[in-house]
Amino acid sequence: MATGEFRIERDTFGELNVPADKLYGAQTQRSVQNFDIGGPRERMPEPLIKAFGVLKKASAQVNMSYGLDQKIGNAIIQAADEVIEGKLMDHFPLVVFQTGSGTQTNMNVNEVIANRAIQMLGGKLGDKATVHPNDHVNMSQSSNDTFPTSMHVAAVLELNNSLIPALTQLRDALDEKAKSFHHIIKIGRTHLQDAVPLTLEQEFSGYVTQLTLGIQRVENSSRNLLKLAQGGTAVGTGLNTRKGFDEKVAAAIASLTNQPFVTAPNKFEALAAHDAIVESHGALNTVAVSLMKIANDIRYLGSGPRCGLGELSLPENEPGSSIMPGKVNPTQCEAMTMVCAQVMGNNTTISIAGSNGQFELNVFKPVMISNFLQSVRILSDASVSFTRNCVVGIKANEDRIKAILNESLMLVTALNPHIGYDNAAKCAKNAHKKGITLKESALELGILTEQQFHDWIKPEEMIGPSD
Amino acid sequence: MATGEFRIERDTFGELNVPADKLYGAQTQRSVQNFDIGGPRERMPEPLIKAFGVLKKASAQVNMSYGLDQKIGNAIIQAADEVIEGKLMDHFPLVVFQTGSGTQTNMNVNEVIANRAIQMLGGKLGDKATVHPNDHVNMSQSSNDTFPTSMHVAAVLELNNSLIPALTQLRDALDEKAKSFHHIIKIGRTHLQDAVPLTLEQEFSGYVTQLTLGIQRVENSSRNLLKLAQGGTAVGTGLNTRKGFDEKVAAAIASLTNQPFVTAPNKFEALAAHDAIVESHGALNTVAVSLMKIANDIRYLGSGPRCGLGELSLPENEPGSSIMPGKVNPTQCEAMTMVCAQVMGNNTTISIAGSNGQFELNVFKPVMISNFLQSVRILSDASVSFTRNCVVGIKANEDRIKAILNESLMLVTALNPHIGYDNAAKCAKNAHKKGITLKESALELGILTEQQFHDWIKPEEMIGPSD
Amino acid sequence: MATGEFRIERDTFGELNVPADKLYGAQTQRSVQNFDIGGPRERMPEPLIKAFGVLKKASAQVNMSYGLDQKIGNAIIQAADEVIEGKLMDHFPLVVFQTGSGTQTNMNVNEVIANRAIQMLGGKLGDKATVHPNDHVNMSQSSNDTFPTSMHVAAVLELNNSLIPALTQLRDALDEKAKSFHHIIKIGRTHLQDAVPLTLEQEFSGYVTQLTLGIQRVENSSRNLLKLAQGGTAVGTGLNTRKGFDEKVAAAIASLTNQPFVTAPNKFEALAAHDAIVESHGALNTVAVSLMKIANDIRYLGSGPRCGLGELSLPENEPGSSIMPGKVNPTQCEAMTMVCAQVMGNNTTISIAGSNGQFELNVFKPVMISNFLQSVRILSDASVSFTRNCVVGIKANEDRIKAILNESLMLVTALNPHIGYDNAAKCAKNAHKKGITLKESALELGILTEQQFHDWIKPEEMIGPSD
Amino acid sequence: MATGEFRIERDTFGELNVPADKLYGAQTQRSVQNFDIGGPRERMPEPLIKAFGVLKKASAQVNMSYGLDQKIGNAIIQAADEVIEGKLMDHFPLVVFQTGSGTQTNMNVNEVIANRAIQMLGGKLGDKATVHPNDHVNMSQSSNDTFPTSMHVAAVLELNNSLIPALTQLRDALDEKAKSFHHIIKIGRTHLQDAVPLTLEQEFSGYVTQLTLGIQRVENSSRNLLKLAQGGTAVGTGLNTRKGFDEKVAAAIASLTNQPFVTAPNKFEALAAHDAIVESHGALNTVAVSLMKIANDIRYLGSGPRCGLGELSLPENEPGSSIMPGKVNPTQCEAMTMVCAQVMGNNTTISIAGSNGQFELNVFKPVMISNFLQSVRILSDASVSFTRNCVVGIKANEDRIKAILNESLMLVTALNPHIGYDNAAKCAKNAHKKGITLKESALELGILTEQQFHDWIKPEEMIGPSD
Repeated sequence: MATGEFRIERDTFGELNVPADKLYGAQTQRSVQNFDIGGPRERMPEPLIKAFGVLKKASAQVNMSYGLDQKIGNAIIQAADEVIEGKLMDHFPLVVFQTGSGTQTNMNVNEVIANRAIQMLGGKLGDKATVHPNDHVNMSQSSNDTFPTSMHVAAVLELNNSLIPALTQLRDALDEKAKSFHHIIKIGRTHLQDAVPLTLEQEFSGYVTQLTLGIQRVENSSRNLLKLAQGGTAVGTGLNTRKGFDEKVAAAIASLTNQPFVTAPNKFEALAAHDAIVESHGALNTVAVSLMKIANDIRYLGSGPRCGLGELSLPENEPGSSIMPGKVNPTQCEAMTMVCAQVMGNNTTISIAGSNGQFELNVFKPVMISNFLQSVRILSDASVSFTRNCVVGIKANEDRIKAILNESLMLVTALNPHIGYDNAAKCAKNAHKKGITLKESALELGILTEQQFHDWIKPEEMIGPSD
Repeated sequence: MATGEFRIERDTFGELNVPADKLYGAQTQRSVQNFDIGGPRERMPEPLIKAFGVLKKASAQVNMSYGLDQKIGNAIIQAADEVIEGKLMDHFPLVVFQTGSGTQTNMNVNEVIANRAIQMLGGKLGDKATVHPNDHVNMSQSSNDTFPTSMHVAAVLELNNSLIPALTQLRDALDEKAKSFHHIIKIGRTHLQDAVPLTLEQEFSGYVTQLTLGIQRVENSSRNLLKLAQGGTAVGTGLNTRKGFDEKVAAAIASLTNQPFVTAPNKFEALAAHDAIVESHGALNTVAVSLMKIANDIRYLGSGPRCGLGELSLPENEPGSSIMPGKVNPTQCEAMTMVCAQVMGNNTTISIAGSNGQFELNVFKPVMISNFLQSVRILSDASVSFTRNCVVGIKANEDRIKAILNESLMLVTALNPHIGYDNAAKCAKNAHKKGITLKESALELGILTEQQFHDWIKPEEMIGPSD
Repeated sequence: MATGEFRIERDTFGELNVPADKLYGAQTQRSVQNFDIGGPRERMPEPLIKAFGVLKKASAQVNMSYGLDQKIGNAIIQAADEVIEGKLMDHFPLVVFQTGSGTQTNMNVNEVIANRAIQMLGGKLGDKATVHPNDHVNMSQSSNDTFPTSMHVAAVLELNNSLIPALTQLRDALDEKAKSFHHIIKIGRTHLQDAVPLTLEQEFSGYVTQLTLGIQRVENSSRNLLKLAQGGTAVGTGLNTRKGFDEKVAAAIASLTNQPFVTAPNKFEALAAHDAIVESHGALNTVAVSLMKIANDIRYLGSGPRCGLGELSLPENEPGSSIMPGKVNPTQCEAMTMVCAQVMGNNTTISIAGSNGQFELNVFKPVMISNFLQSVRILSDASVSFTRNCVVGIKANEDRIKAILNESLMLVTALNPHIGYDNAAKCAKNAHKKGITLKESALELGILTEQQFHDWIKPEEMIGPSD
Repeated sequence: MATGEFRIERDTFGELNVPADKLYGAQTQRSVQNFDIGGPRERMPEPLIKAFGVLKKASAQVNMSYGLDQKIGNAIIQAADEVIEGKLMDHFPLVVFQTGSGTQTNMNVNEVIANRAIQMLGGKLGDKATVHPNDHVNMSQSSNDTFPTSMHVAAVLELNNSLIPALTQLRDALDEKAKSFHHIIKIGRTHLQDAVPLTLEQEFSGYVTQLTLGIQRVENSSRNLLKLAQGGTAVGTGLNTRKGFDEKVAAAIASLTNQPFVTAPNKFEALAAHDAIVESHGALNTVAVSLMKIANDIRYLGSGPRCGLGELSLPENEPGSSIMPGKVNPTQCEAMTMVCAQVMGNNTTISIAGSNGQFELNVFKPVMISNFLQSVRILSDASVSFTRNCVVGIKANEDRIKAILNESLMLVTALNPHIGYDNAAKCAKNAHKKGITLKESALELGILTEQQFHDWIKPEEMIGPSD
């Protein structure tokens, strides 16, 4: 069917031209015209559309048990499967900045599934008698419960299928790297100033712990996302559904997704507030805070090659400088920290949106879920990219680490028990003043012998509590 | 001792005049002079100082088991008790905007406890030979582990002693109020537009659920706060402590506070990151989001008395208008929503601060804990105030609620099964056009009788799913 | 050329397969592989790519005056024109989350323009001898100055071509609407409670003023965006450029865009900080704050149709309810307020990103400009949509406005001078208690006659200061 | 008068015990009891109370021209002067989290001034017949216009008297420091990696430019703060004022403060929105972003003494380490960056609060102005502290700067014109591989002589464009 042709679709407002090769109907087309805000970047996110597919399939299954015609029901299920598989994404043109209940996207899904089901049944697009977007696809549902249900389904699936594995991969890579650094003793830095030593493994173990806890945070904070609004219909009372519909749909969704979804105990809260989204994004915000710290540390430790800290070498993934060997820009760290800044801003958007619900409905749903899913996506992708293109290739510059540790004056603290505080301080001050090493200073001052220096200054004995 | 007199205290930098009636010493005085930023409002929060008291007491107990002189140790404990009781708050003049490790406040505590202990032992203020702020009070400790430990202790105590009880009180008051509204059927509102009915109990049950979940969020998100940094000393290695010190101190703090504190499994993370604070404040942010929604709803439902929604009457706590009876400004809602805006901004501050740790130390500690504790305090106080001065006194204007429900056209949906969709729509359109009630319209159109109207339009059958 | 075929391109790292139908080269391809973060939604925004086209054209013009071969220069200009016209957008696949200097996008532009110029000159793609992406297209430039220059060019053009006209259109529509409401006196509301009257024109004039000032804010705050980094090259010194290059390029860009661009007086600031972006987005944030207030007011004033305030009727753009006449959801207000929440979050992202510059370079450039341009785009589009689909169609429900004004008790204040404060208060209290109107109450109490009531209660005399 | 005694005050609600030594009355006392939220830290900021004093004085002056009794008027003026001088601060106990219009603080001011005026006139506290808080002190005013007027007056005075001078002082100190660094050539750093050289003056000139622009931003963005709401009274119409009152009060305030205040052209906007506060705080947010970058750079450049970058020595203001000479913690940078994080969070609070105005009144006034004034205060104080205790004492470690510049491999680019790109690259690669200097590498490879190296490698010729 050639582009540029149209067919007529109708809703209660009247008739509208719809592109002939599109499966959506009049209400979708009306939204396209009325909400020309942003462009393809602002479209409803794909995981949400797929979650709607899951919901419509589950609803059809349950509705068939309540009397929906089997032929219609099965056609809806088949069409919904194509939505779930992402085959019909071209038919979802609506943007986030539409009605705040997401009604138009619910109708977009209803229209596409109805028309696709009609096709499957050999009917004519738009022939609502065959499969009706409202009466059949949206049966026992309201935008006000389908949209938040799809928000939760999409959020849980993305968290579990993308973010948790990505963070786990990064954590494991950092952990493996940490273990390989077990023997490397380095200068510690507090206030950016030289401090007492620790091992590079210990330093990296902090990052590993941050991520281990981050994964737990994501898991813990997403438990309220498992509660589904479906069955609340327009205001939370469940008017126009049958008793038990809510629990059956939740069970069907749980079965389709293999996630322990349940029906929300209180549907009024589930429609009027999206605290579960705010809560869970709070964990994403915490993960962003962690990753910002880790990526910053790694790029500073890798700074140089000559005029920075130079303790780490990061893998060189692209030309840094054509003539300057060793100029390896920490580009993966930069991508990661930009992602973190985005996620932290998304947290503000989601919090503002979440706080502005009114009476029986929060009407910032689309902007909440789109920011949430973007955060999940870019945190996931950046974690994978950072792991593969940076962490696994990090090398410790052991010579440099050792050299600056030995240049450090902090080791003087180890001399206290042997030569007394005053002599130790004198030794350090002399070294600082003259720009020489502690050993040079000690020998120059005749405070101890080279042998004594080596016997007494043992960084490896400074990296833990004493017995 | 008269104000205006001074005594001389000294630190490694030299001598300084300190107000004679103050227990702090040279390092505190130096900070007073070097960080003249803000004023009393920006002082280190009281709960943090008290938590430091707990920590110093616990440390002295453990240090005595490792050999600290009993007389000195007991004097430290007694002095620390006075810090815990808040008796010495006048001796803590330092502001939040000091060194980012909080070192100066740690020293302030050490100096005050040392001098108070000296007083108790009959010594002369500043006589460090009797009780030394570093060698005795700060024994086996570093600012880098004491400050984050005190952050966690203060946070946990405030959450448990203030916020959880306050939120519980508010939740219970809303729940009781909800139950008393069981019989009241009202118009639902979605998109601010008239929708199908629900009970006022159902509406309030959404708020109750938000708070029930909010309390759980605070509890769940604070579990990482139970992990204490103490024992990490300067960089996390525990240099200069003895093996087991960390666990013993955590146990002592747990015993003193009756909270299940444990030593942090990874001290590097505990010093260099404060993700646990970011995480827990994410729950406070979610609670603020919830409370903003609840307080907004309540003030809109109480708007009027004549030209608003007028469904609720809020208690009148202060003169609204001297001549205008019924003008009750929803001042408690206003205080609450301002608190929520503050907490949401504090979340940004805490996230930025948390993301900026460097190597072995995060140096935004004071600003993180001061924002955290402010959020806890104002959320707690506002919840109590809102409960007492607003929620318990809310009255439903049942006549008004019933009147506007009956004016509503949404009830027409109940006629569908009886007179068909077309007649029902005709009836509603006629009523809308002429500004009359549904019943008037139906009777005027001769579609049904008054008796039929009353038999068929039963809002009480529209507030749940059908069998 | 069939999809799926490849050609070989090379950079200093080696050879790479590049899709045969794409004009970009090895460095772009390498970025595609190394930064698989997000998807098409996260691509570098189109206005930025077009601004790069302007910059490359201007640079070629200036470089020709410094000796760049005319044939090569002219081919670059022609190719750059196609970038400016948006003809080559398919050749810019890179995402925002890449290197933080935007180097890879600068190279993407260089590669595409070089290859397109080669095509125009009849050469073979990738034959750098004909036109070299670095030596010719990037001549005298560095990513570190081209990217911030393009950021500013894109920002200024979008603000002037999209946002200012859109806000002006909205302001004018509100102003026209306000004037048409000149004669309508309505109840004022403070604290959501009934207050003294004002005209609907006065109420809308507040919105008009907010937008008039908003337009000025955008204009004023964008002045530092007119300063261009070009000529600073790698660190701001201008190494590898010729004296005067910076001013000539700025003049050329000014000429091409018809905007008063100048060279930045200090290039170090221009590379290492993006305060001008933060500043200007602060104005966008303020505009978002204004629009949130305006859209909220309008949807509350339009709430109903029976159970809300009902003072305004908003245009019905899509089916609200199939059976419920008058249920017009304020969907344009909802889209607008979601846009505002997004912009307010983007402000956090941009502030965090702006604060994290390091030494000679801020490496959060792409995330800053992409958030900035999204804010401009959605504010612009939403303002146009809100104007067309909401504001111009707003109708005042004059009967309703008059009715509730007359029900109000606030008018009693007009009786004070005639019957004294005590009688006026008695009259109001009686009305409030019995739920009757002021007039009914006054007549019932025998305080005044119907004629006196009409003579003395004149809302039209309460809408301004007295003489 | 002994503490613990009370006198009875009354308002329209009835009688209340008020501490006998306090000048405030019943409405203040009622607020103390009803809004027990936070503590002294959350009190209305002092500059706001003083601004109220200015307003009450100006109003009395104008009211006397409209007929206010001269004796009463003059007593009010005298009492207001004491408020302006800060003599009566103990009588303003109310917190920010009260009614969102700030009504209670307006009444607090009215009550204190009335009672103080009564004292001055020899009357008895609470004797409203002598001086009435409403009829005389608040004459022709409403909380709804006095509070926003005082917000603007306080904001303008604090910006001009504190922040602008503080930022100017810091800018000048950095400028002077920059100039003293004119001769110091150092390695540039982009992506934290070694880049081409610049002078330390050039680097610092970037900071100076940021602050110069920051000062302009604060000035430009505060112009709408000069517009005063006074004269709008309850809803913006000016009901109960006389024509011209608004302009006269603005003129009187301008005269008292020596600032060009004018009456707001549109009072509806001035009461219902506080965009001017949001706008101006946007400039403070930008300044915070700038200062975060500057303070971060300085502490990294000062990191060490041995294991960091070590290019700068920061002044040592307090003991860093008793035994470790040279461990100077960048504590002033830490205080400054914490201030910046606070201001950036305050920006979120203010934006949320500003966006939530409703109809004729924004009821987040107190939280907006308290966050605004805190930002001004801590930015001002921190700038002064940072100037005095850090910037003026910064020293360049010229030897270290020179040494690492010479170790750098980036200088190799200067050899290109002399020995060709290939040889230059070979030289750099050899140096990188072996960890030797460029010169050593060049000599080892026999590519050039020592003399040629010194003739050709001249960093001083790499710090600007060529002729």
